[in-house]
Amino acid sequence: MSIVVVGTTAFDSVQTPYGAAEKVLGGSANYFSMAASFFTPIKMVSVIGEDFPQDHLEYLNNRNVCTKGIAKLLGKTFHWKGQYERDLSEAETLETHLNVLEQFKPALPHEYRKCEYVFLANIDPDLQQQVLEQMESPKVVACDTMNFWISLKRESLIQTLKRIDIFLLNEAEARQLSGESNLIRAAKKIHACGPRIIIIKRGEHGALLYNEGRIFVLSAFPLETVQDPTGAGDTFAGGFMGYLAKSQNELDDTTLRKAIVYGTVMASFNVEDFSFNRLKTLDWGLIEQRYRSLLNALSF
Amino acid sequence: MSIVVVGTTAFDSVQTPYGAAEKVLGGSANYFSMAASFFTPIKMVSVIGEDFPQDHLEYLNNRNVCTKGIAKLLGKTFHWKGQYERDLSEAETLETHLNVLEQFKPALPHEYRKCEYVFLANIDPDLQQQVLEQMESPKVVACDTMNFWISLKRESLIQTLKRIDIFLLNEAEARQLSGESNLIRAAKKIHACGPRIIIIKRGEHGALLYNEGRIFVLSAFPLETVQDPTGAGDTFAGGFMGYLAKSQNELDDTTLRKAIVYGTVMASFNVEDFSFNRLKTLDWGLIEQRYRSLLNALSF
Repeated sequence: MSIVVVGTTAFDSVQTPYGAAEKVLGGSANYFSMAASFFTPIKMVSVIGEDFPQDHLEYLNNRNVCTKGIAKLLGKTFHWKGQYERDLSEAETLETHLNVLEQFKPALPHEYRKCEYVFLANIDPDLQQQVLEQMESPKVVACDTMNFWISLKRESLIQTLKRIDIFLLNEAEARQLSGESNLIRAAKKIHACGPRIIIIKRGEHGALLYNEGRIFVLSAFPLETVQDPTGAGDTFAGGFMGYLAKSQNELDDTTLRKAIVYGTVMASFNVEDFSFNRLKTLDWGLIEQRYRSLLNALSF
Repeated sequence: MSIVVVGTTAFDSVQTPYGAAEKVLGGSANYFSMAASFFTPIKMVSVIGEDFPQDHLEYLNNRNVCTKGIAKLLGKTFHWKGQYERDLSEAETLETHLNVLEQFKPALPHEYRKCEYVFLANIDPDLQQQVLEQMESPKVVACDTMNFWISLKRESLIQTLKRIDIFLLNEAEARQLSGESNLIRAAKKIHACGPRIIIIKRGEHGALLYNEGRIFVLSAFPLETVQDPTGAGDTFAGGFMGYLAKSQNELDDTTLRKAIVYGTVMASFNVEDFSFNRLKTLDWGLIEQRYRSLLNALSF
């Protein structure tokens, strides 16, 4: 079962204590699609400028990612520049050049509209809603966001939340949105805004699922080498949604928990290298191997 | 099988965002003993001043905690004053009055010396070694420490590490001692100093076990209400060592992992209230119930 994803396509310039990458491929829709395409076909909605490499679109097409929904506009592709300090837990944005993202109005190809699974990756909540309005009757809608939208487009984000099933956000965002420092209390408050299922991403500390009062906590995969956390949340969402769409199960605890484990697995690969470098080396065997390693590190 | 524990007995004055407690009972040996005594008899080695309440010693005696090894010296009991900010992850020490702790020379009662399980709770590493020297042939020696000793008694701490099996410390301490920010790398470096088994406590994020290269990660019990994290590490150690001594199993992965789960359970109770207030309300049924709840929150 395909997933429609809307989000950014970017050139990222990233500095971490372990290296740097200059204008490499990134963006929320891309990290998501790279991860989710191991599970199920993806239909991307995004925007690029004239400077975007055609061969990456071809690479995506060869990986079961439809790029018909990617608008190409006059101008440059969105560019983000950021750095991480030693603990890698939070990016500091150094520069944001929206470029073509400023003119972007998502228009979904006809064949996208009947899809049952939708992921609204981190992008302006107005755009997230414009995508939702073009979908016919999605079965599962999940959504991500960031601190910027919580501050500056809070009302629009709250409107989006009323229309989604699953909300994924990180610890700091959950605290910012809810005003609660305790994550369970934060999840309860966010739940009251609409989404039935809340997933709070905790970076190297794992993830917390709040499913109508029931809690699941999962540690991250213990890694000795982390190069770049950029895209960790999007690849987590990719593994998570990929499993949901592949299995087509109901959103019960068993399914959601297994989906979170796959999200954790995909994110753990992604942070081992810059851009999509590690994701490009993967195959299903490696994914299943890490799933078993994670299971082993968690079992008692 | 009894456990000998050496550590502090204190009056704590604590302020957290959720309340405050003035000169309440605390100290590393006490938190440890309160938790571990649910599993097995405890023999305490500590020091108190003339101001220490006799009825707490009687309370401990009634709970299977031998207090013969607690020296009563002229002067006041050790007093610690600290506060926690909103995220509760680290205490800021406001005042430390060592008082009788400055003159303390541990002298173990004869019947303590044959014990097979020893826990060197957070106290001057010189004192930890003095206790070890009085033990005949302990089978399992575990040790805790704090940032203060890592900075100021590093050499003595390194000497202690050569003689122990299990080292428990928190994330910040592991990074401080090893100079490595990644916890697996930190554990490897600490392992090279002597201890075969390293347990890194991560507060609300759980714990990591390094057992000669094999990794186990456990999330903390998800709590909606945390009042005071004081003693969390000591009660974790209490549940952990309590289970080891009760089961008398070899220190294989299965046993160590289960012991860490019991440590997590005991710490989760402790942080729900100030001082020993929550621990005093427990019975074995409540402990087993929370063990099952934790299992439920972790299962997939």
